Amino acid sequence: MPTEQSADLAIFERRESEARSYCRSFPKSFVKAKGAELTTADGRTYIDFLAGCSSLNYGHNDPDMQAALIEHITADGITHGLDMHSDAKAGFLTAFEEIILKPRGMDYKVMMTGPTGTNAVEAAMKLARKVTGRRNIIAFTNGFHGMTMGALAATGNAGKRTGAGPVSLNDVSRMPYEGAFGEGVDSLHIIAEMLSNPSSGIDAPAAFIIEPVQGEGGLNAASTAFMQGIARLAKEHGALLIVDDIQAGCGRTGTFFSFEEMGIEPDLIPMAKSFSGMGLPFAALLIRPEHDIWGPAEHNGTFRGNTHAFVTARVALEKFWKDDVFQKSIAAKSAMLREGLQLIANEIPGARLKGRGMMQGVDVGSGTLAGEICARAFEKGLIIETSGASDEVVKVLAPLTTPEATFRKGLNILLDAARDVTATTRFAAE
Amino acid sequence: MPTEQSADLAIFERRESEARSYCRSFPKSFVKAKGAELTTADGRTYIDFLAGCSSLNYGHNDPDMQAALIEHITADGITHGLDMHSDAKAGFLTAFEEIILKPRGMDYKVMMTGPTGTNAVEAAMKLARKVTGRRNIIAFTNGFHGMTMGALAATGNAGKRTGAGPVSLNDVSRMPYEGAFGEGVDSLHIIAEMLSNPSSGIDAPAAFIIEPVQGEGGLNAASTAFMQGIARLAKEHGALLIVDDIQAGCGRTGTFFSFEEMGIEPDLIPMAKSFSGMGLPFAALLIRPEHDIWGPAEHNGTFRGNTHAFVTARVALEKFWKDDVFQKSIAAKSAMLREGLQLIANEIPGARLKGRGMMQGVDVGSGTLAGEICARAFEKGLIIETSGASDEVVKVLAPLTTPEATFRKGLNILLDAARDVTATTRFAAE
Amino acid sequence: MPTEQSADLAIFERRESEARSYCRSFPKSFVKAKGAELTTADGRTYIDFLAGCSSLNYGHNDPDMQAALIEHITADGITHGLDMHSDAKAGFLTAFEEIILKPRGMDYKVMMTGPTGTNAVEAAMKLARKVTGRRNIIAFTNGFHGMTMGALAATGNAGKRTGAGPVSLNDVSRMPYEGAFGEGVDSLHIIAEMLSNPSSGIDAPAAFIIEPVQGEGGLNAASTAFMQGIARLAKEHGALLIVDDIQAGCGRTGTFFSFEEMGIEPDLIPMAKSFSGMGLPFAALLIRPEHDIWGPAEHNGTFRGNTHAFVTARVALEKFWKDDVFQKSIAAKSAMLREGLQLIANEIPGARLKGRGMMQGVDVGSGTLAGEICARAFEKGLIIETSGASDEVVKVLAPLTTPEATFRKGLNILLDAARDVTATTRFAAE
Amino acid sequence: MPTEQSADLAIFERRESEARSYCRSFPKSFVKAKGAELTTADGRTYIDFLAGCSSLNYGHNDPDMQAALIEHITADGITHGLDMHSDAKAGFLTAFEEIILKPRGMDYKVMMTGPTGTNAVEAAMKLARKVTGRRNIIAFTNGFHGMTMGALAATGNAGKRTGAGPVSLNDVSRMPYEGAFGEGVDSLHIIAEMLSNPSSGIDAPAAFIIEPVQGEGGLNAASTAFMQGIARLAKEHGALLIVDDIQAGCGRTGTFFSFEEMGIEPDLIPMAKSFSGMGLPFAALLIRPEHDIWGPAEHNGTFRGNTHAFVTARVALEKFWKDDVFQKSIAAKSAMLREGLQLIANEIPGARLKGRGMMQGVDVGSGTLAGEICARAFEKGLIIETSGASDEVVKVLAPLTTPEATFRKGLNILLDAARDVTATTRFAAE
Repeated sequence: MPTEQSADLAIFERRESEARSYCRSFPKSFVKAKGAELTTADGRTYIDFLAGCSSLNYGHNDPDMQAALIEHITADGITHGLDMHSDAKAGFLTAFEEIILKPRGMDYKVMMTGPTGTNAVEAAMKLARKVTGRRNIIAFTNGFHGMTMGALAATGNAGKRTGAGPVSLNDVSRMPYEGAFGEGVDSLHIIAEMLSNPSSGIDAPAAFIIEPVQGEGGLNAASTAFMQGIARLAKEHGALLIVDDIQAGCGRTGTFFSFEEMGIEPDLIPMAKSFSGMGLPFAALLIRPEHDIWGPAEHNGTFRGNTHAFVTARVALEKFWKDDVFQKSIAAKSAMLREGLQLIANEIPGARLKGRGMMQGVDVGSGTLAGEICARAFEKGLIIETSGASDEVVKVLAPLTTPEATFRKGLNILLDAARDVTATTRFAAE
Repeated sequence: MPTEQSADLAIFERRESEARSYCRSFPKSFVKAKGAELTTADGRTYIDFLAGCSSLNYGHNDPDMQAALIEHITADGITHGLDMHSDAKAGFLTAFEEIILKPRGMDYKVMMTGPTGTNAVEAAMKLARKVTGRRNIIAFTNGFHGMTMGALAATGNAGKRTGAGPVSLNDVSRMPYEGAFGEGVDSLHIIAEMLSNPSSGIDAPAAFIIEPVQGEGGLNAASTAFMQGIARLAKEHGALLIVDDIQAGCGRTGTFFSFEEMGIEPDLIPMAKSFSGMGLPFAALLIRPEHDIWGPAEHNGTFRGNTHAFVTARVALEKFWKDDVFQKSIAAKSAMLREGLQLIANEIPGARLKGRGMMQGVDVGSGTLAGEICARAFEKGLIIETSGASDEVVKVLAPLTTPEATFRKGLNILLDAARDVTATTRFAAE
Repeated sequence: MPTEQSADLAIFERRESEARSYCRSFPKSFVKAKGAELTTADGRTYIDFLAGCSSLNYGHNDPDMQAALIEHITADGITHGLDMHSDAKAGFLTAFEEIILKPRGMDYKVMMTGPTGTNAVEAAMKLARKVTGRRNIIAFTNGFHGMTMGALAATGNAGKRTGAGPVSLNDVSRMPYEGAFGEGVDSLHIIAEMLSNPSSGIDAPAAFIIEPVQGEGGLNAASTAFMQGIARLAKEHGALLIVDDIQAGCGRTGTFFSFEEMGIEPDLIPMAKSFSGMGLPFAALLIRPEHDIWGPAEHNGTFRGNTHAFVTARVALEKFWKDDVFQKSIAAKSAMLREGLQLIANEIPGARLKGRGMMQGVDVGSGTLAGEICARAFEKGLIIETSGASDEVVKVLAPLTTPEATFRKGLNILLDAARDVTATTRFAAE
Repeated sequence: MPTEQSADLAIFERRESEARSYCRSFPKSFVKAKGAELTTADGRTYIDFLAGCSSLNYGHNDPDMQAALIEHITADGITHGLDMHSDAKAGFLTAFEEIILKPRGMDYKVMMTGPTGTNAVEAAMKLARKVTGRRNIIAFTNGFHGMTMGALAATGNAGKRTGAGPVSLNDVSRMPYEGAFGEGVDSLHIIAEMLSNPSSGIDAPAAFIIEPVQGEGGLNAASTAFMQGIARLAKEHGALLIVDDIQAGCGRTGTFFSFEEMGIEPDLIPMAKSFSGMGLPFAALLIRPEHDIWGPAEHNGTFRGNTHAFVTARVALEKFWKDDVFQKSIAAKSAMLREGLQLIANEIPGARLKGRGMMQGVDVGSGTLAGEICARAFEKGLIIETSGASDEVVKVLAPLTTPEATFRKGLNILLDAARDVTATTRFAAE
């Protein structure tokens, strides 16, 4: 029964804070979601190329996760248990150990932080400082790590940083991400010089915090050489390496961790977004055992270890990561994505592809243009957003499980939207 | 089917971070929970006087919330929708407006923050600084507001503050809570003097952040006069009043907000813990409309607005807060609690009651003694924890829905535990 | 030859920064000074009850210091020698050891800091933090320690703190000076509680920094019991005790150090103002030997160890401190001062005496009134200033060497000024 | 009468803080100084190529300054006058206006700060933040600006920064000085990119603080193009330009200000070192009139405006800067210096010249080697020091008034020392 949308939306206008944002780009009220599609109250269906900003890598309401969760709830399974032991937590940890850690030869402790990415990042920054006794954390241009005061200090975006009001965001030094200063300027060289010069004014770092692919920062994808360079610099200077895999992890780039083929061993890995499998709030910090020097509850939080998320996260691991079928399908879809985006880029002078795996987009050179393309796509039935310092990148973050036909359909909508907008732009210019 | 507990627990030992804490006091693995009771893998049932630190005010797995949530999941309702509009969100906001705000004559915008209390506190602190253009926030002795860097600065506990490592926790001034310096020292007078003296060195405050009852800080309950005094000082000095009702709200003290009979109008109210009704991760910041100056996404977060929590939170409001039946039952149970605790206090020389409503405890004068009582209670089938600067308060945070018989049983276990421990202590002393 | 004052003053108006201040209260240009008097370009002579804010304890241009300095200059003695050794420095250090340290049983290293009080305070704060590995320094209400960022954080005055612009003044906690909250509130008790409560939010202190008499803060004079209490608390909590004797030292209160009869042993003592004897820029930090862990030049500065000041400082020690004649004369003059101030206080309802030794004044209850009295006194030939959080204290800081007749004359001018102003005020009120 | 040196030095060992430094390189006690030479207690004379780190540009004890100062003292001229008006101050300001500002078309207010360079820098940083309402100040690699907490944050040297102990040095971002990353990396490009990228994480700057020649940082001399680029970036981004001319000013590079031929107009110019002419403690901040928004005493200090220094500073201006004779002599001497240093550089493989004007040196590639050369030079009668991040530069800072013969003699000693050391090194290596 389609309802009057305007009535539906009045309550949000009246009661929800001005901080709300995505609902401004997609001014509909949604009532259902399955796989790669969302349905509004008035019965319209949208293809989802946003996927909860990479929180829904396995799609909306995966039936196996749904079933397991319903079973858990029906059986009066634990809903909230602080950080007490539960069968659900044991099930998740066991699956994570067997399916993810062991096959990759990785040895990490799992810290259940508050169920937000920013909380896992705060835990990582605090722990790196405790371990090293140092204050300075090196973060990168265009990095995004969260909005609480510690993580916000590491986040580059000026529009986010203003949220702190008149308070300083301290104890972070900013270094260039790969390619930040354009071709011909080697970021690694610059960072190495800054750290080896005892009069550079950059204090000895507790940690580097880096995203292998910068999701919010414009789909900048670091090369293996760059990531290895950072890992080597961290080691040389006694700093921990924090790899923030919150947006790029859980298969988004083709492998479970976005860095797992890069030959690096991060000290700390904040995880969130798709980590619960079904989009439930969940975050964790993976810690190399030698750094796990927390005292009990030294970093705590009421909702650390969301038990419903343990249930769905376990199913996600067991369903998608026990063999290489899923990974192969991501690879195939990533190729399709690149092809589709290239067609779009061809429509726009100066446009170029960004990102890797199922985390790609088109830098169209202007935030206004990118915004218009996304708005036009929404009119045509596609949910998609921009990213980048000036919102200049049209970013595709489709569920990894999107059926091929739907995926093609979505890409075609995007192409049409790009053509519409550039046509209009050309007319306007004439 | 009872399983071997030691096998169950090995995975936690092997893979969960040393930061884990409650599981150390209650070294069992839990598999089911209903109402006021939890059941372990080996089939033992425990009465819950901890209630997820006040996150389970309506008990575990309330059947109406369960049913609504299962229905939502079954119907492919939205699980994760960033901050897009949804019928579930509209339902929650409408219920909150109708059942909570309107009858109390309160006019607040609701900001869906990341689903942790600390995130709502960070949002409040950031907003207060943006609104006033000032940096300094006045927090109180024994206050607890969270563990991310902004909120941690406002948290008093030294054991938590060490988690920040060598980094300073800035832009917070500390003032005495009511009674902090003992009888005969008027905290309000001290704060007023500090703020009116232009050479005190206390910069003009952006906000005061205060808990009406300090849950972690030792069940210190502020009087109406004190809260009004703080509200008045805030107004006089152009500061916002942030009332952190995360632990004391949602009926814990007898009314929906712990301060609602105090005649104060907070500017910002962080809510979390029992706000979702069922223990799901959920937090929000209530904002007086004139302060809602956020830009879109100026404070954001992937899991802001947990849709499952909207469903259960709405049920909680509709089920418990439409009339005064629930409130009256809390009042009755609070009286019973006071009586029970008095019996316990009578066993322990120097012990005194703390707190109010269903947020009461006994200060037994020593963290060791309090810990022993709680440990003994756990052996006898009761889950209960301590609070206070030295963990010296045995704190009862039972579900507000605990059946009377179960509640009495729990109190009796606690009395027995106290007697056992004090008897042992006396023997040891002889 | 009296010159046209307005022409003289135009250059200041045109070229000197708006930060200039004393010249606004005393809008004359001075050309000569001797003993306790200053002479203007137009030949008028003023009695000096300001004494360079206690930098001229031995009066202007003491003839013996003049002679020694002229001899030094004439002989091409070192003027500027960085921190190289010189006969002048040896002479000063030897005199300081023999005349000041040894007779008092004090063992301190002397650190020649940059020649400003604030620089000596910065050195003290830095060293206390290095020694303890802690960040937090406890400073007091109404304390004044300097204007550079480290010292400014410890300074209470709001009008000074605004000079830092939008930057936070961190790593200092503020505690009440003796009597800060009025009779009946024991500041020591409050501080002790704040430090012993592990949830107070006051981090373990690196140091306490305190003035035995608060010169800028309103001539608040701490009792021996209070200073001993602070010393004891510092010891208990592993903090260093920094006694800032910049304004109260060098005989101002009757003894060389203002605390020397209090039975305390400060860890660090910043000295400046009258330390050079003749008003030349000079500052030093006295350090108990076990804390002297500086690396070479770890705190340095071009003008550390002003060689001309070594010459005059040595003469000051030899002339005034070899026996108790000078001390006795200060005691006598202090009694006279108290008597004189009492007469003034008697004129003003509610007025009360503040301070001790030759560092006394009258709190007249209002900054406006105090300012009017000082302005009227200036018209009558007396230079005198206010102090206190609201400039409410008329403060006498005459040279300790002021001849008795001149001193009486100055006090009479002040009495007349007070009478004039209060008479006017009374008329105005009628 | 030569005295026993060891006896002389015992007092320093016993009583002077471990922070002392130059006296360790030059372990003699000095008693006289004239022009370009210093004489020890045991009668030995040393040529001074250190000149108080550029504080003695006009040599030791200039006879005209001596005479004027003696006359001032003899006449009971003001010694200490806080910031009251005096004929001495008027004389200085008038001379500064007539001789320095007007001929250069410069319009600046003069703020008398505390008499240390670091105090003038603190005043500049505070004022830039007040004027812009921003916190972030951009400082450069290898910059040196002082040791008090505000200035220290802008200082790059790690060995100095450690003096702050565990406290963070905040609100400064570090950018590369010209050439910091070697040939082929354009520092201006990097800075421009960092500032124009809204996600760089570099907050909008209140100011840039830069030395035209980095005295402590290794005699790095910025080009006109670089300084103009920085000036342009400052303007574009609404930041003030602070040119710290403390070490390079007062003729050291050949002109009164080191930047005066670069076509830039700094907003704030901290001055100190040779500004008093005779090496007396003195510092000032030059402020473009539109930025002079200080409230009275908003930045103050007891010794601001050292009256003796006004006297000598006026003589220095009148004697050396009324025509271009002095400037021409500096140019000639600078050429001689370059020639002499080239001979030395020729002796050392890989050595290269650094700096400009009378602020040049030889980068010998190793702090150990540079230190050995200076030590050997001292044995031979020359006082000279190193500079640079690793002390790898032998730095010549001779008085600008050094007679030609003495200057040649000094350069020859240095050449001999370099030869001795490299010969020894070669022997040792064989």
